[in-house]
Amino acid sequence: MGRWEPNARGRLERAALELYLERGFDQTTVAQIAARAGLTERTFFRHFADKREVLFAGAVGLQEFLVRTLASTPDSAAPIDAVAAAFEAAGALLQERRDYAWQRQAVIAANAELQERELIKLAALASAMTDTLRQRGVTDPAASLAAEAGIAVFKIAFERWAGGTSQADLPQVIRESLDELKAVTAGK
Amino acid sequence: MGRWEPNARGRLERAALELYLERGFDQTTVAQIAARAGLTERTFFRHFADKREVLFAGAVGLQEFLVRTLASTPDSAAPIDAVAAAFEAAGALLQERRDYAWQRQAVIAANAELQERELIKLAALASAMTDTLRQRGVTDPAASLAAEAGIAVFKIAFERWAGGTSQADLPQVIRESLDELKAVTAGK
Repeated sequence: MGRWEPNARGRLERAALELYLERGFDQTTVAQIAARAGLTERTFFRHFADKREVLFAGAVGLQEFLVRTLASTPDSAAPIDAVAAAFEAAGALLQERRDYAWQRQAVIAANAELQERELIKLAALASAMTDTLRQRGVTDPAASLAAEAGIAVFKIAFERWAGGTSQADLPQVIRESLDELKAVTAGK
Repeated sequence: MGRWEPNARGRLERAALELYLERGFDQTTVAQIAARAGLTERTFFRHFADKREVLFAGAVGLQEFLVRTLASTPDSAAPIDAVAAAFEAAGALLQERRDYAWQRQAVIAANAELQERELIKLAALASAMTDTLRQRGVTDPAASLAAEAGIAVFKIAFERWAGGTSQADLPQVIRESLDELKAVTAGK
């Protein structure tokens, strides 16, 4: 291990995001990210496998948070409401990092490969939440349908929030999108 | 162009699927596929960009069929029911090619890269169906929620059908899954 760098990880994340927005993701190198952060490439690779993973390093934490929150929701809640409550709680955390989340979304929206990586992340989330619902005694296909429907609500709410279509805070946009899904599936 | 080969495309598809099931997708080469079909590699590349595209060549036709069917559904149908009706119609075609569809699904389920490609295909389908709903006058976010919810129903129904969880025909599994989604989002 090299010498300790104060908040090296956060500095690398910010430097990477700045460069992706300025030059585009494809045109940015790890050397440039490290230089912008005032750190070495060696330090970069101690924190991230590659320049793509800077944008997805939070995915594991998000999934753990969602699973933990879903698992601790009272059993009396209907599966779809338990899933939505977990996303609302995650949405409150994302709201606190709004500028970062919006910039990250702008980078991803501009790059097909990153959009694919984001789809894979969401599919993994759906799978983890399906398993958690099963452990709560929800049978199939209700477990997978509730998880996939929750992912659809989150995805669309996130895009509306980060894309500026909605002015409300993310947890509220998630609640509104869930209500809209309920109306849509009721045939309205 | 080389000489005309009767049903070269279909022979290549069948040969590829056989080899993917026998040896695994990663272990199969284009040379082996061409040899099994009694054709040349040159003929293979006249029909498919690479060995992965053999499995996804039908995606464009499926999307066109779904969009066309959705666009021609009576306006009186609720968006979610119009989307589900389009998937049921596609499901009837897939049912006619059941053996092929099941084998293809087995190959994809065994390979992470192919699963990712399948996710991208479904995301493109959702986007195309959202656009079609907008053209029918459905506003956002109802258009995207109905399309994404329809995709979730189709994905889960297809997995149950091709995985042998359900013994029913695909259109019926789609209908049952839609009813289940409606129950789930009603909080049942």
